[in-house]
Amino acid sequence: MDERKYTVGIDIGGTNTVIGMVADTGSIVDCVKIPTVGHASPETFVGCIAAEIEKLVNRLPAQSIVAGIGVGVPCANAETGLVEGAANLPWPNFPLVRLMEDAAGMPTFITNDANAAAIGEMTYGVAQGLDNFIMLTLGTGVGAGIVVDGHLLSGSRGYAGELGHMVFPFAADRMCACGRRGCLQTVSSAGGVVETARRLLDSEAIPSSLRDIDRDALSARDIGRAAEKNDALALEVFRFTGDAIGTACASFAAFSDPDAIILFGGVAGAARFMVDAMREALEREALYVYKGRIRILTSSLPEADAALLGAASLPLHYEKKNVKKDE
Amino acid sequence: MDERKYTVGIDIGGTNTVIGMVADTGSIVDCVKIPTVGHASPETFVGCIAAEIEKLVNRLPAQSIVAGIGVGVPCANAETGLVEGAANLPWPNFPLVRLMEDAAGMPTFITNDANAAAIGEMTYGVAQGLDNFIMLTLGTGVGAGIVVDGHLLSGSRGYAGELGHMVFPFAADRMCACGRRGCLQTVSSAGGVVETARRLLDSEAIPSSLRDIDRDALSARDIGRAAEKNDALALEVFRFTGDAIGTACASFAAFSDPDAIILFGGVAGAARFMVDAMREALEREALYVYKGRIRILTSSLPEADAALLGAASLPLHYEKKNVKKDE
Repeated sequence: MDERKYTVGIDIGGTNTVIGMVADTGSIVDCVKIPTVGHASPETFVGCIAAEIEKLVNRLPAQSIVAGIGVGVPCANAETGLVEGAANLPWPNFPLVRLMEDAAGMPTFITNDANAAAIGEMTYGVAQGLDNFIMLTLGTGVGAGIVVDGHLLSGSRGYAGELGHMVFPFAADRMCACGRRGCLQTVSSAGGVVETARRLLDSEAIPSSLRDIDRDALSARDIGRAAEKNDALALEVFRFTGDAIGTACASFAAFSDPDAIILFGGVAGAARFMVDAMREALEREALYVYKGRIRILTSSLPEADAALLGAASLPLHYEKKNVKKDE
Repeated sequence: MDERKYTVGIDIGGTNTVIGMVADTGSIVDCVKIPTVGHASPETFVGCIAAEIEKLVNRLPAQSIVAGIGVGVPCANAETGLVEGAANLPWPNFPLVRLMEDAAGMPTFITNDANAAAIGEMTYGVAQGLDNFIMLTLGTGVGAGIVVDGHLLSGSRGYAGELGHMVFPFAADRMCACGRRGCLQTVSSAGGVVETARRLLDSEAIPSSLRDIDRDALSARDIGRAAEKNDALALEVFRFTGDAIGTACASFAAFSDPDAIILFGGVAGAARFMVDAMREALEREALYVYKGRIRILTSSLPEADAALLGAASLPLHYEKKNVKKDE
């Protein structure tokens, strides 16, 4: 029997963490989800992940090799291995690579969740063959993986693409987890969509099935389900969200001249309710050289897969560079 | 006597065009300036440039080789050789590479003026050794050369870095040459600085030597000279401009995580009057991960030299790639 090579891909989100065993062919052979919240410390959280990895490893056939762990996590510093200032995680700062290598005994590599998703989408999804695109991750937080001239932007300390924290007038009355006002994230994250719905429920007389849901328990998923049933208020929530995202993308275009914007993450599940307003705003607000040139796409990979596959590709990607680690 | 290799560098701005003969050692050995405006057509404009190039070539010593022409020009499409939609030039669209090759008989390469300046600054100026910076060109128009991870961003059609056309609330009441409202350029260009001064002259009772200058003839240079003499209104103009640029740079940081912002172009000559307000705004408005990390630099090269040297380096840069042209 031949040896078979695997890597572990991990996608740490603000709510859930997905851990997958990925074959070097790019197929996810096994996968488990644990909550990100509710752990006493980063150490216990990483300990839980390591325990899940052990179970995944034990389920592999004999002769399997696990080459390493790749993690997509908000505010990852790929150089230092630290998570630094992650406003959407229970612990904004912790030494993820060191904790993971101690707990799991495998070489570990991190990048931010949006970059991981962009790498996954380039390798397996709708971004195959695209040299210029922005992948907007719309989830608990909002980030971006930006590819320009075929290269995924990293920046001086790996913080390129924090587009969820670009400030726009349409969000001027919203406070962000980062401590500032007006961030795109306050409108286009799952929480932002809920906040928009609450405001509309308060201020508009539109009838809506959302009025039957406890205000504090209302989720972006509830609003998506209502939109699927043509609920007028829910549709207006996504129209507003799409308009905001399209306006933001008109600004982003001036930076990197992309061929496409790719929507990814939980909120992107409602893309079909947002895309018309998004396209209209993008065409309305963009500088003339970009008008009519930028496609709006949605991730073709199942929700967690792009981030997981992108993360899982990190150990393979770094294998050749990784001289220091093997010393 | 040895052969000596030269290239022609051209910097086409909204007001003037600078044409220089540059040795392959990077020194500008000869240089001439002609107005960009006042020509009957793109053909006659390019014809004037070609005539100046001929004079420069004739002044070279014997045994000199001129390898080609590089041009920095707004809205250059490096792929097609066209200028497309240049709002700050007398002709927004013209086939610059074809006209120049026809008129001057030398292989010609173009990039936008801001990219040319960034290449020049990387090769000879304060950006030597910097892998992550944004070079903001503040002149008749406002553009940017963006370098991320050591790579100068081009984008899907060469239009990356049109940061002068990012829209901000501080300029919401200003109309841009591009037809939209609120572009950074309406505040931070030479014309934007003049407009700010006019507004302050109208609305504020601050005494100012600028009140002695004919309102329609007022130039950014006048305002710079007044600031040098501590004119309170002129200083307030540059404080406002610096605050606006700093606010804009806080947004730009979220895109590319730069180590430095480099100010370049005519308005950057007044950088010392803007830099305190710019730094304060950048630190105030930036996401926490960028705070205290971004240096503000001014170009170390004489005003036109960076753009000229960057342009002149294009034929050398493309020499190896340039198979089609030689066929």
